[in-house]
Amino acid sequence: MSKEIPYKIYLEESEMPKAWYNLRADMKKKPAPLLNPGTHKPMTAEELSVVFCDELVKQELDNDTKFYEIPQEIRDFYKMYRPSPLVRAYCLEKKLGTPAHIYYKFEGNNTSGSHKLNSAIAQAYYAKKQGLKGVTTETGAGQWGTALSMACSYFDLDCKVFMVKVSYEQKPFRREVMRTYGASVTPSPSETTNVGKKILAEHPGTTGSLGCAISEAVEVAVGTPGYRYVLGSVLNQVLLHQSVIGLETKAALDKYGIKADIVIGCAGGGSNLGGLIAPFMGEKLRGEADYRIIAVEPASCPSLTRGVYAYDFCDTGMVCPLAKMYTLGSDFIPAPNHAGGLRYHGMSSILSELYDQGLMEARSVKQTEVFEAAETFARVEGILPAPESSHAIKAAIDEALKCKETGEEKNIVFGLTGTGYFDMVAYEKFHDGKMDDYIPTDEELAKFRARLPKVD
Amino acid sequence: MSKEIPYKIYLEESEMPKAWYNLRADMKKKPAPLLNPGTHKPMTAEELSVVFCDELVKQELDNDTKFYEIPQEIRDFYKMYRPSPLVRAYCLEKKLGTPAHIYYKFEGNNTSGSHKLNSAIAQAYYAKKQGLKGVTTETGAGQWGTALSMACSYFDLDCKVFMVKVSYEQKPFRREVMRTYGASVTPSPSETTNVGKKILAEHPGTTGSLGCAISEAVEVAVGTPGYRYVLGSVLNQVLLHQSVIGLETKAALDKYGIKADIVIGCAGGGSNLGGLIAPFMGEKLRGEADYRIIAVEPASCPSLTRGVYAYDFCDTGMVCPLAKMYTLGSDFIPAPNHAGGLRYHGMSSILSELYDQGLMEARSVKQTEVFEAAETFARVEGILPAPESSHAIKAAIDEALKCKETGEEKNIVFGLTGTGYFDMVAYEKFHDGKMDDYIPTDEELAKFRARLPKVD
Repeated sequence: MSKEIPYKIYLEESEMPKAWYNLRADMKKKPAPLLNPGTHKPMTAEELSVVFCDELVKQELDNDTKFYEIPQEIRDFYKMYRPSPLVRAYCLEKKLGTPAHIYYKFEGNNTSGSHKLNSAIAQAYYAKKQGLKGVTTETGAGQWGTALSMACSYFDLDCKVFMVKVSYEQKPFRREVMRTYGASVTPSPSETTNVGKKILAEHPGTTGSLGCAISEAVEVAVGTPGYRYVLGSVLNQVLLHQSVIGLETKAALDKYGIKADIVIGCAGGGSNLGGLIAPFMGEKLRGEADYRIIAVEPASCPSLTRGVYAYDFCDTGMVCPLAKMYTLGSDFIPAPNHAGGLRYHGMSSILSELYDQGLMEARSVKQTEVFEAAETFARVEGILPAPESSHAIKAAIDEALKCKETGEEKNIVFGLTGTGYFDMVAYEKFHDGKMDDYIPTDEELAKFRARLPKVD
Repeated sequence: MSKEIPYKIYLEESEMPKAWYNLRADMKKKPAPLLNPGTHKPMTAEELSVVFCDELVKQELDNDTKFYEIPQEIRDFYKMYRPSPLVRAYCLEKKLGTPAHIYYKFEGNNTSGSHKLNSAIAQAYYAKKQGLKGVTTETGAGQWGTALSMACSYFDLDCKVFMVKVSYEQKPFRREVMRTYGASVTPSPSETTNVGKKILAEHPGTTGSLGCAISEAVEVAVGTPGYRYVLGSVLNQVLLHQSVIGLETKAALDKYGIKADIVIGCAGGGSNLGGLIAPFMGEKLRGEADYRIIAVEPASCPSLTRGVYAYDFCDTGMVCPLAKMYTLGSDFIPAPNHAGGLRYHGMSSILSELYDQGLMEARSVKQTEVFEAAETFARVEGILPAPESSHAIKAAIDEALKCKETGEEKNIVFGLTGTGYFDMVAYEKFHDGKMDDYIPTDEELAKFRARLPKVD
């Protein structure tokens, strides 16, 4: 119990999770099913298998199987960069003068620079196993695209990436990393797809969004024999794979007899948050323990805090199934900002349902305060964080400062999803005082909300 | 002995080295002393202390003390990113089809992206302890500058960095990382120093070199009250601090009963190589074990393989002491290439002496073959390596392929000094087939050699 806690807690390889945990199995009220955008009936496995690999369709629809064994090939790949460390933020605690104990699960120690690799390698594995030739995808900040490129290179699959234009321009080196791993990268919206052309015609000069890029990638996957589409967030299957984050975190805490009080994650589509909180939320759902769980999103794209819980399209082009989720509207395109990976209009159905049930909290934070937190963190903890991850840092610091006021010795755990090495344009703007904090007005949000599809 | 070897061997915090190892103590013939450039007499501690912190001067001149206890403050900082993993390159071995076992000590898992942080934090610590206001330095690839920025930020010291111009331009984001940590960065040669002005007048349009940048940084340090100069490589003190790499490597190998056969490191000024090989060379010097030790340098800047062993200036501006080393001549400026950190005209005196005694081998490799090795490595091992580190990868692959021919199951250990996230311009050139393999001619080298200082 009172073992001295090292700066970094590493599990042994033998202690690494051997199965992913499917949080849905413990939810009494399950997340709402995906609907066919034409008939508004639940999507069948057959319909989904046009877009996704068969095994991934099974995982997507399976609300009951509690554990999925992680195939050995994937576990071998995981060993190249996992277990990731759970770090005790001794220096940050000292800097803040807080009695709280702060821990972060650092997922940035791999070339993709984030947790995205955890699901990329799984999706590439199942595509390969099905005998496919390649996959298509979208990427926002570029982390998912990089991760998928690495995974496809490992399994010798072709990889076509549509990259949100604002990120493509802000992060020119990301595409070179993807190219190192043999992927092709197209800025989105592009003229290479019908949906891209349509979006460009309607919104000339748009800097793009994840929703646009998804539409383009799906169009190419469905129209090219031997290809399927893969997605780095939002979907149930992705949260399943990302449960490895939470399982490792929980195992590391348990190893040292530490009980988390607050678990914090940044939330874009929900992949990191859903993965990190999985085993904690599981205990909460089963009534075995209680935790405060906090989702942190950008004030510029506030799907949980200012969106509505409704059926909506997953993509801007409206070619994908409908998902019930907290959403700002599928044609919402956030103001250009630097939280590339958090620019999604909606939120994982699982997380949306949990939030709706009051099982977790959400808050939004402004861009400049996020970068202030990032810089503070970098200077004391040594790691230069991704802007996405820094949303969680900001909330963790706020909670730690509350503990300073109350004198409470809480255990705060947050997800440090990645590094900011490819985000130096954003850091530069911050240093030069050129970063804005644009927040959409209620009127703007209402406009997009009014265009939500009508589903009975 | 036959314990299963994990992909990554991590030491426990309690197993981390508590003292640095001073290789000089075990050398029968010591490295030649630094000489005063005016009198050609050995530099005294008093003379050196104008440039360097007092404690570092002591370390620099001490050929006898075998172990230096690592101060607790430095050990605490080390815990934020150390121990670094010793990785078994299972995937690379499989790809090569070699019976050899390949291990690499990965020093890139920190924001500076390399091993440079190991000495930066030590030098910042001693500067702070001496009550200094700040330090000046040069940086080539930007890794040392980033490392020093991080270290200075941690100890609240001012940090002025002169960055080799070619790297400053090729790696625009590096300076933003340094800025995040509060450093000021000036491209070198610059108009801000006398020596910079002189070099610019003599070589208009020069892309700079480490030698130039050192001269500028020293000039500013000596001319600014409360400042000293710090250097990221070459010096004895740096190799002392970097011995932590080798000590951890040796401890990790010992833990699993592995005996290295070949130890390989890239060599610019020698900081990584000297640190990595320290305990292995120590055993060799004491006659306790034998190892093949290989230094790998760029063919464009081949100080060991084509230089001469002679006294030379450490800097282009000839303001620093003379060091006896393998050198190409202090005004040698290599053709623009992408091994920024390996563009130094000389080599650590310690390593030069060991090489001269026949205790280690050296080889040079061409730029494009280095990047080919880098890409192969990235695709199978997942880590996108720094160009500098990729010199060692190239040699390790070559040795592993020799084992494939002979069927020998050798243990090959190499230093993977850092990541290439800030080197994507170089990778882009490689992908586009725009990388050249310029090698200096014998005539060119003879020209620089003729200008070596005459020392009796």
